Amino acid sequence: MDKGTHTRDRILERAFRLASRDGLDGLTLGTLATDLGMSKSGLFAHFASKEHLQLEVLRVAVRRFEDTVLRPALEQARGLPRLDKLFRLWLDWLRDPESSGCIFVVASTESDDQERDVGRFLAEQHGQLLQTLTRLVRAAVQERQLRPGVDTRQVAFEIHGIVLAAHFARRLLRDPDATNRALRAYERLLLDAGRQASETEKHDRSFNETGRAK
Amino acid sequence: MDKGTHTRDRILERAFRLASRDGLDGLTLGTLATDLGMSKSGLFAHFASKEHLQLEVLRVAVRRFEDTVLRPALEQARGLPRLDKLFRLWLDWLRDPESSGCIFVVASTESDDQERDVGRFLAEQHGQLLQTLTRLVRAAVQERQLRPGVDTRQVAFEIHGIVLAAHFARRLLRDPDATNRALRAYERLLLDAGRQASETEKHDRSFNETGRAK
Repeated sequence: MDKGTHTRDRILERAFRLASRDGLDGLTLGTLATDLGMSKSGLFAHFASKEHLQLEVLRVAVRRFEDTVLRPALEQARGLPRLDKLFRLWLDWLRDPESSGCIFVVASTESDDQERDVGRFLAEQHGQLLQTLTRLVRAAVQERQLRPGVDTRQVAFEIHGIVLAAHFARRLLRDPDATNRALRAYERLLLDAGRQASETEKHDRSFNETGRAK
Repeated sequence: MDKGTHTRDRILERAFRLASRDGLDGLTLGTLATDLGMSKSGLFAHFASKEHLQLEVLRVAVRRFEDTVLRPALEQARGLPRLDKLFRLWLDWLRDPESSGCIFVVASTESDDQERDVGRFLAEQHGQLLQTLTRLVRAAVQERQLRPGVDTRQVAFEIHGIVLAAHFARRLLRDPDATNRALRAYERLLLDAGRQASETEKHDRSFNETGRAK
């Protein structure tokens, strides 16, 4: 890795952490430069504009989400094991101390203007994630782990809601039960969608065994 | 109403609309002054600082939420009629064309720093809303409309998640089904909590009769 690429990565890493706490709008070239001990012009050499920097930070976030949530989930067996893993890793993602919350939730509420590149990018990513969720639910139906005729998009919508509730309960209300409440809501949702209770118990145990300590 | 109060109200009304679209951080005294055709110093005469303005805007939002969502809900009969009405009016609140989304969701993601007055105020308001929800669910249990032993805080957590999912599906994904999906999720949640199916049907009809046209 050459020095330029290294510096660029260091900037993006730092910017990612700042943005997941303060949002993309809180990310000014000035703050970032001070924070990194660089000059603003040094930063400008790597990113043409604030919007360019914001987009690159979101791309870092997407890659990280793919590496730590999506890919490990897709390595599981087709059907519910994938969906369960995705949900659990998504909750872990909310608790990642390095990113202090979900950068996508933070960025989405401030940048939903789809006339701008950042807003469009966020809408696309959210749309793709909802599609992935829907596809995993559909696979679980095909594997006969969920009831035929389940409204797969509805299940995806509700899973998204549970994750959002956990995000807000943690960040805003400092609710220490947020993750457990999210797990309970998810279990109820899948039971209603036809999951066998014995499966849920197995799944319960696996959460307890592998769930990250608070 | 004297002229000063009138001007102040006009500023807050405009600021409320801007903030519900762009967030509180997007609300600068400069933009607002231009928008209202006032001088910045004219604005400063009414609000000592940006943070003061933000807090006052949030107070306007809270009053409006109380007037259009909470109070009409509390006028219903104790138990499920109150909870149903609250949920339906909350979804209407998300669709209010004047506020273009929920100002609280937008503000919360950018201002969850509870060292600041704005962050603290938002956390308090969200906490109170969750408590109100929990209380309404508990009343429905006491009225024997829901099962005894229902985890009332869990139901409140999940209702919050459904509303958040609707907010993000509408704003970010432009999903025209957001409201219907939210209603379906709510119905399933309450059926699981012991609501009688016949009650749900009655409730369905009332949604269809009184639901706002899209």
